[in-house]
Amino acid sequence: MNNRKEHDLLGDETLPDTAWYGIQTLRALRNFNTSGVPIHQFQDLINTLTMVKQASAEANHELGLLSSKKTNAIRQACIRIREGELHNQFVVDLIQGGAGVSTNMNANEVIANLALSIMGHEKGEYQYLHPNNDVNKSQTNNDAYATAARLSIVLSTQTLTHALSSIKSSFEKKAEEFARTPLVKGTHLQDTATKMLGSEFADFAASLKEEIVNIQSACTQLCATNLNSTSQYQTNSVHPDYTKSTIKHLTHISALPITSDKESSDNHSDMEAFVKTSAIQRKLAIKLAKICNAICILSNDPRTNFNEINLPITQAGSSLVPGVVSPVIPEAVSQTAFQVIGHDVTVCMAAEAGSQQLNAMEPVIIYNILNSMKMLSSAIYMLNHRCIRGITANSPPIQLNIPDSRMLAALMPDLSYGTHPLNHLSSAAANTSPMKTAV
Amino acid sequence: MNNRKEHDLLGDETLPDTAWYGIQTLRALRNFNTSGVPIHQFQDLINTLTMVKQASAEANHELGLLSSKKTNAIRQACIRIREGELHNQFVVDLIQGGAGVSTNMNANEVIANLALSIMGHEKGEYQYLHPNNDVNKSQTNNDAYATAARLSIVLSTQTLTHALSSIKSSFEKKAEEFARTPLVKGTHLQDTATKMLGSEFADFAASLKEEIVNIQSACTQLCATNLNSTSQYQTNSVHPDYTKSTIKHLTHISALPITSDKESSDNHSDMEAFVKTSAIQRKLAIKLAKICNAICILSNDPRTNFNEINLPITQAGSSLVPGVVSPVIPEAVSQTAFQVIGHDVTVCMAAEAGSQQLNAMEPVIIYNILNSMKMLSSAIYMLNHRCIRGITANSPPIQLNIPDSRMLAALMPDLSYGTHPLNHLSSAAANTSPMKTAV
Amino acid sequence: MNNRKEHDLLGDETLPDTAWYGIQTLRALRNFNTSGVPIHQFQDLINTLTMVKQASAEANHELGLLSSKKTNAIRQACIRIREGELHNQFVVDLIQGGAGVSTNMNANEVIANLALSIMGHEKGEYQYLHPNNDVNKSQTNNDAYATAARLSIVLSTQTLTHALSSIKSSFEKKAEEFARTPLVKGTHLQDTATKMLGSEFADFAASLKEEIVNIQSACTQLCATNLNSTSQYQTNSVHPDYTKSTIKHLTHISALPITSDKESSDNHSDMEAFVKTSAIQRKLAIKLAKICNAICILSNDPRTNFNEINLPITQAGSSLVPGVVSPVIPEAVSQTAFQVIGHDVTVCMAAEAGSQQLNAMEPVIIYNILNSMKMLSSAIYMLNHRCIRGITANSPPIQLNIPDSRMLAALMPDLSYGTHPLNHLSSAAANTSPMKTAV
Amino acid sequence: MNNRKEHDLLGDETLPDTAWYGIQTLRALRNFNTSGVPIHQFQDLINTLTMVKQASAEANHELGLLSSKKTNAIRQACIRIREGELHNQFVVDLIQGGAGVSTNMNANEVIANLALSIMGHEKGEYQYLHPNNDVNKSQTNNDAYATAARLSIVLSTQTLTHALSSIKSSFEKKAEEFARTPLVKGTHLQDTATKMLGSEFADFAASLKEEIVNIQSACTQLCATNLNSTSQYQTNSVHPDYTKSTIKHLTHISALPITSDKESSDNHSDMEAFVKTSAIQRKLAIKLAKICNAICILSNDPRTNFNEINLPITQAGSSLVPGVVSPVIPEAVSQTAFQVIGHDVTVCMAAEAGSQQLNAMEPVIIYNILNSMKMLSSAIYMLNHRCIRGITANSPPIQLNIPDSRMLAALMPDLSYGTHPLNHLSSAAANTSPMKTAV
Repeated sequence: MNNRKEHDLLGDETLPDTAWYGIQTLRALRNFNTSGVPIHQFQDLINTLTMVKQASAEANHELGLLSSKKTNAIRQACIRIREGELHNQFVVDLIQGGAGVSTNMNANEVIANLALSIMGHEKGEYQYLHPNNDVNKSQTNNDAYATAARLSIVLSTQTLTHALSSIKSSFEKKAEEFARTPLVKGTHLQDTATKMLGSEFADFAASLKEEIVNIQSACTQLCATNLNSTSQYQTNSVHPDYTKSTIKHLTHISALPITSDKESSDNHSDMEAFVKTSAIQRKLAIKLAKICNAICILSNDPRTNFNEINLPITQAGSSLVPGVVSPVIPEAVSQTAFQVIGHDVTVCMAAEAGSQQLNAMEPVIIYNILNSMKMLSSAIYMLNHRCIRGITANSPPIQLNIPDSRMLAALMPDLSYGTHPLNHLSSAAANTSPMKTAV
Repeated sequence: MNNRKEHDLLGDETLPDTAWYGIQTLRALRNFNTSGVPIHQFQDLINTLTMVKQASAEANHELGLLSSKKTNAIRQACIRIREGELHNQFVVDLIQGGAGVSTNMNANEVIANLALSIMGHEKGEYQYLHPNNDVNKSQTNNDAYATAARLSIVLSTQTLTHALSSIKSSFEKKAEEFARTPLVKGTHLQDTATKMLGSEFADFAASLKEEIVNIQSACTQLCATNLNSTSQYQTNSVHPDYTKSTIKHLTHISALPITSDKESSDNHSDMEAFVKTSAIQRKLAIKLAKICNAICILSNDPRTNFNEINLPITQAGSSLVPGVVSPVIPEAVSQTAFQVIGHDVTVCMAAEAGSQQLNAMEPVIIYNILNSMKMLSSAIYMLNHRCIRGITANSPPIQLNIPDSRMLAALMPDLSYGTHPLNHLSSAAANTSPMKTAV
Repeated sequence: MNNRKEHDLLGDETLPDTAWYGIQTLRALRNFNTSGVPIHQFQDLINTLTMVKQASAEANHELGLLSSKKTNAIRQACIRIREGELHNQFVVDLIQGGAGVSTNMNANEVIANLALSIMGHEKGEYQYLHPNNDVNKSQTNNDAYATAARLSIVLSTQTLTHALSSIKSSFEKKAEEFARTPLVKGTHLQDTATKMLGSEFADFAASLKEEIVNIQSACTQLCATNLNSTSQYQTNSVHPDYTKSTIKHLTHISALPITSDKESSDNHSDMEAFVKTSAIQRKLAIKLAKICNAICILSNDPRTNFNEINLPITQAGSSLVPGVVSPVIPEAVSQTAFQVIGHDVTVCMAAEAGSQQLNAMEPVIIYNILNSMKMLSSAIYMLNHRCIRGITANSPPIQLNIPDSRMLAALMPDLSYGTHPLNHLSSAAANTSPMKTAV
Repeated sequence: MNNRKEHDLLGDETLPDTAWYGIQTLRALRNFNTSGVPIHQFQDLINTLTMVKQASAEANHELGLLSSKKTNAIRQACIRIREGELHNQFVVDLIQGGAGVSTNMNANEVIANLALSIMGHEKGEYQYLHPNNDVNKSQTNNDAYATAARLSIVLSTQTLTHALSSIKSSFEKKAEEFARTPLVKGTHLQDTATKMLGSEFADFAASLKEEIVNIQSACTQLCATNLNSTSQYQTNSVHPDYTKSTIKHLTHISALPITSDKESSDNHSDMEAFVKTSAIQRKLAIKLAKICNAICILSNDPRTNFNEINLPITQAGSSLVPGVVSPVIPEAVSQTAFQVIGHDVTVCMAAEAGSQQLNAMEPVIIYNILNSMKMLSSAIYMLNHRCIRGITANSPPIQLNIPDSRMLAALMPDLSYGTHPLNHLSSAAANTSPMKTAV
């Protein structure tokens, strides 16, 4: 076993030869045991960290600040990591102090050691290529971390948007399928009016369609990077063209519409984009919970064959009453929605807590947004594939615009009003009341 | 019109002669426009402020620090205010900076001016009796405010506890009334088992009974005062027996079991009691929302005459469909519950935000707890008197322990499972399935 | 005293002659004791209710459904109420069951009785003009309420937007004033870089500017009305041109860009706009709390004369230590922010709870959004006028781009990093360390 | 590769021979992709599931309902799993529909297959020992799940209580160590009074001590099991002595004080205990965030050598300014606290959402409470070992009760008031003011 020694300001530490990360990651590993969730559970974040590092190396090279040899090695290392190598070396807990320093250093060290190996050197021979001086060159921990974090959220919306588009299509198909199926359940039906079951599903589709637009708008804001924005700090140590060049390379590498966040300071702007994104996630979660609740109510009440939908059966029900089946998929989606709503509260508290130019609470914000993004995507996919697509209606379609409204009234023995299904003046009265037949 | 001038460290101000409050209250009026809710909307707080001031005067007198003449005047002023005088002079917005200083000074000034009038002096002649030097003697703004605030919460629980006891009795009466009425709705019914409607109401009663106990336990903690606890500050300006004497008098005046909060600092202890009280309010709100939801579901579905309850009708329903009636009372209670849950989040954020020995966010905490207390009391009273007491059941009572379980099965054509009522394997299958008859 | 009798489906009730509202409002008064806050505390809501009623009367008249006589009387009544009459007759509690029915009926009845009086009839002589049949003609309770509620939120944003613009200007003036005043406090300062105090204030301005845009975007969505949208209910009792005509008149009366909410159902759409608006309020609250926190920290630490700001003094401080002054205004604003964040949770829970086509929880949503709007407006006005405008800086402006970075380093004996001000390796080390001089 | 077929009501499925779970677990795996967190991440839950199953088997055996052979096999299987075997077979996502059915079935199937193997049979040969008929005998999915879940929370408090006791001791040691070290920072200092740094740490200890008591009280409530409580369902299929016998065996196996939850229904009671436990976790999180904030402020301001504490250095700071060190541990703890507060909101929403006798949202409640328990334990351990224990004070201890208060005043050039450190009337005034010397 060949261990190696590394050194930083606090002294020496021994690293196992298997470790592609370095001493600062090691210290972070010892320091932080919070969420129990390491970086590598969020591949999007590894991808954007390496994109930022590669773009930065290209910019430094272009400005004559980094040799071709080092730049080539860093580029290759970043690409290979994005292709799947060494993901298990991104080990730091996502919830950490220091505003993301440790995540950034974990990336710097793994990239440096892989680049060293590409250059034919041993891990830890930082005299040839240094995690801070070369990989992190012209960046600060915080703007590199913040930029990668923002872009990782953008990448993660791609799965979500795909899932949303797909379930929207399913709802639209059901809307068409049930366009002539009458829906009695619900609220204050007017005189000879009714609603079609299909329109309920059309509403679901329309409601989710809005969220796709909202998410795209948040992404635009998240693509504004603050990588060493000279508007913020009157830095004379960073090349004046560095930011511009990095943005050019980052746009190329990521294929995302990166812009410079010139107007505003890194702090408020980040929180703005994060709080907005989290609020969109929450709104989507609320909509999903409502849709699931509505579906459960529609699938309710097996006593009547009128106006009912059937959810597909995905597992046996009670261990004691085998014939009974729960709407387990909507129930699981509702719970996921509550989880996302809780995550949003965490984001909100952390955003409020950051009191100065740098928000030290950013890591918990990133973690919750990324986690909600993953959970929402999975839940929507699950809802679509294990439930919505298999929904059938029990009622036969009816002819719209029937001439005799009395016929429709006869089909609708119960007129409900209010969110909760409810009482008539009394069952007895209702059965004989002239109001009933007059409806 | 005779106006008067008053003076403080910031200079002179003119007060209308009708004002029983003084210059510091005037400044607070100008400073704070936040909730729009003045102190006098919470009579319990006026009561406890005057209790604390009176007890403090008695203690100062007992220790030879305040003349009999001044003590008598303060005592009389406090009693008259508690009897209903000058409540409209407690004008400061409940949400204020300075950790409650302005509420305390509002009380000091009104009491001082009423005491001056009792002594035969004019308002503002503070040379005879001073808001700070006499009425606030031996106290700090913050411990006087905190003590009065805590006790006002305790007083406000009396109405709530009464409302809870009363609705509990109503639920118990319904539990007895419906003890033999079968309940089919709900979840995994076993073989030949069922639940009686009455047991549902018995559960509601038991659930709320627990909260009465919880509230009483919070009150004990809230009765621990930190009035000039010498454990906290090594004060040599306050008489060593002051705290003990104040507690004696405050116990006598308030008829509450006041204790000394010796062990812990005013800060953490206050927040502990407040956060705990708010959490109890939230738990009660959750229970109310659930009970209301359950009642709405039970009153649901007029299509079947089996197992239904009827809510009393309290207003006409839709403006278009007059025969339809909404469960408006449970709906209003649920909304009140959501309001209380929101208040609790405010309390939680404010408790977290207070970063040092004194929590400057205490006023918003007090306001929300008092407001939730009032809203919960009203909502429970409303639910009890306008809904629960008038509930009737549609089903006839049945004989328990019937020998032939098949008969019961026949009574229960639908076996539900899960939170949401749900599907059988298929309606067609369900109608013919041997499982049905085997249940 | 002449009382009068009114009648509805539930029977007769006696109303005092002073009451301009009618029997349904009376029942609602008895039913709902929840928030304790009546409609008339929100004048914007009275205004928009009368706008909707007037526009609807005009449309009904235009379509030949309402006589000129009745239309004139309703028009005049609505105008007079908007001019300030009878506001105290809008008495129903804002938190109510029935999805806003009672608020709508309160408006219908007050308008009907005032119109009757204009027509020369007595209150209650509904045979000449009826609250439901005439004032509420072609509407349902719920879409009339929902439209008025949405527009009242739009009106209430005008005060908020004004307050935001004004405080933004104040921050911009301070940004200019402090453009050359160095700021040391804060986070990772780089080599010879620093930040100017002015840029901190410029950030505050930029951050709030975004919210003005966000609010305007929410207003556009809130101006989409669902007044009898025929897309939702295949109603044959309402004139097909009614919606179009109402929108025309409502646009004229309100001077707002009213549109038809054709695409989506009233339910999801309302919640979408409400949840979005509430999220914007929350984000604004978070920003205000952060700004207040930052200002308190900047005004902190009287021990150094370097880089300090002074808040204006608005009241005396401690009752015991008179020379000490608290940052009471920012403290009050932070508490208001926490209140708004709590309101948003209530909105979120209520939005999620509405399970069917109609959200019965809408009243508590409206109440919280309107209340937050009022509180935010007041708090921002207060912060601007009682604090920001009077801020002064203690440090003299410096010359930027000074050639010798050592000089700047000398000005900055402490380099902070992280949100919380923090330690150097050790105080002793820090004082002698070559790192210090090298910075 | 030998695969096997299993059958349930929905049809046949093929399982890989490596799978110790069965067909129902397989379906759940396909159904639920929500949190991404499988049961086996919470070992306490595996432990209590096997305890419940073992106790139930013993009770069934005692009552003559299960053969000795089967009972022995189940007992042995349960013990071996608790000793560490087959944990990776507990694969179902913790957030699931069906109120925990899938978690229970996962346990039933793994135990059944291990018991079969112990009996010399092949996996899946359920004719010899059946997951439902034998392992789940006399239970329902929901009460078995609920009981195991409650007990797993109780087990998980043991680590938390240990961490709390340990950090409490550390705070007490620091309280003693700093008992004579004056503390100037903070709030309204009175005349010649001050506070010692040690008393701040004593407060931290006292504050956390309360939570240990609170947690123990919650555990008592959580130990009330509802395993087939005959009070709830008039079941004639379960032996009347089953509950009593199970409690006896479960007490023996778990060494926990199990009681019967006779009084109340499984539903409300569970939520009561869960919401209460979550509220305690939230209160603890608030306290931790406040303590961390206070520590950061105390460690603040390196410009003065008076009254400062030093946090131990655990990692290098900024990548650009190496000498600067962040308070990374308190920052990480605060973020963990925010996470826990978010989890509590999820618990609260889920508890409110469960509308009938069974709360289908229970799994998300369990997951969040268990996750918060783990995170709080880790964070407290981290705070204790990586920060609190290493804190040092910079100021020399002083002699208490010094005769000349002027001397003390001289030591305290700044008297702060309010939460946020703040201004004097003006720096200039403050320096010369007679108030200063009079303090």
